[in-house]
Amino acid sequence: MKHPPLVETLIEAFTCLPGVGPRSAQRMTYALLERGREQGRELAGALQAAMDGVSHCERCRNYAERTNAEQNLCAICLDPRRDSSLICIVSSPANVLAVEQSGEFRGHYFVLMGELSPLDGVGPRELGLDVLEQRLRDGEIRELILATGTTVEGEATAHYILDLAREAGVSVTRIAQGVPMGGDLEFVDGATLAQALRARRPFAD
Amino acid sequence: MKHPPLVETLIEAFTCLPGVGPRSAQRMTYALLERGREQGRELAGALQAAMDGVSHCERCRNYAERTNAEQNLCAICLDPRRDSSLICIVSSPANVLAVEQSGEFRGHYFVLMGELSPLDGVGPRELGLDVLEQRLRDGEIRELILATGTTVEGEATAHYILDLAREAGVSVTRIAQGVPMGGDLEFVDGATLAQALRARRPFAD
Repeated sequence: MKHPPLVETLIEAFTCLPGVGPRSAQRMTYALLERGREQGRELAGALQAAMDGVSHCERCRNYAERTNAEQNLCAICLDPRRDSSLICIVSSPANVLAVEQSGEFRGHYFVLMGELSPLDGVGPRELGLDVLEQRLRDGEIRELILATGTTVEGEATAHYILDLAREAGVSVTRIAQGVPMGGDLEFVDGATLAQALRARRPFAD
Repeated sequence: MKHPPLVETLIEAFTCLPGVGPRSAQRMTYALLERGREQGRELAGALQAAMDGVSHCERCRNYAERTNAEQNLCAICLDPRRDSSLICIVSSPANVLAVEQSGEFRGHYFVLMGELSPLDGVGPRELGLDVLEQRLRDGEIRELILATGTTVEGEATAHYILDLAREAGVSVTRIAQGVPMGGDLEFVDGATLAQALRARRPFAD
């Protein structure tokens, strides 16, 4: 004897979320069935809309909603007041929000959506570094600011990008003091990030 | 600068789940957008189907799928081989599963979907105890087996039901040794629950 199939299916479906095991999934299912049917329907609608409607910006790889425009671009890449020759490289959309909140940066981003991790099958192509390489060669980029994490994978990614930029003759800087070693960028406060952006230095091995 | 609206809406929607704060919600959203669009769509479908299609059994209050039948009944209440004069009272559908897994019980259930908690606005009517009272008076119930939790709320609920049954002249038993004090029924193993069902005793104040 089990739950009715619709209930079992929902419990099973919840376990696809990170950090959600069978017991949490059951608790979520009960909570929505008992006290939150309307919220459950809203969540269903939001999920469906996001899965179908969220794409990636064709220039910076950040999240962008699908439009009928010729090129799918995010709000930052479309903003004419921002400096498109200055590119800040981050590993996730959350890190874009963190840098934006520092109020110190008015250039564009390049969002890796991950960091180099060959054992997990994440190589340069998965991070869009072939696209970045092409853009570096096109000569429209004046400076790359590296703001990847200070973990092993973040360091490896930073060095890989440093090599690409040197080959293309583009100067590379890196956000400086204030980013705690081993920490993830999205947990750093805005004032520290502003200081790190102001104190950026040439990147060397 | 924030995420695109579809992304923000999904993050916000996830926080309706128990134990999910803004940061977990963001992690879930990124995970589905990056690596699980198809799973995300399945979750959306399962949510919508469960929110619309799951109802409560009109006899025992357990989850049951909506049907076109005159009465909406669960699989246990529809099973002609089970003894409908023996009713086991539990506080949640998870506890029905736990008792079923003990293999010791072939009667029906009455699922309270909660326990008495006046401060949270949960009174007898919210637990369907007015319905249970009517059924006790109808004379079709031979024995009530109390299997509510051993918490303060569970004890209060058990005593309330004991009074109802006494007034109707129905005998009341309670599952015995093996249920740890202060624990929730769904965490008890099947063998312990089987022993508790076999060793049930008349319930007294």
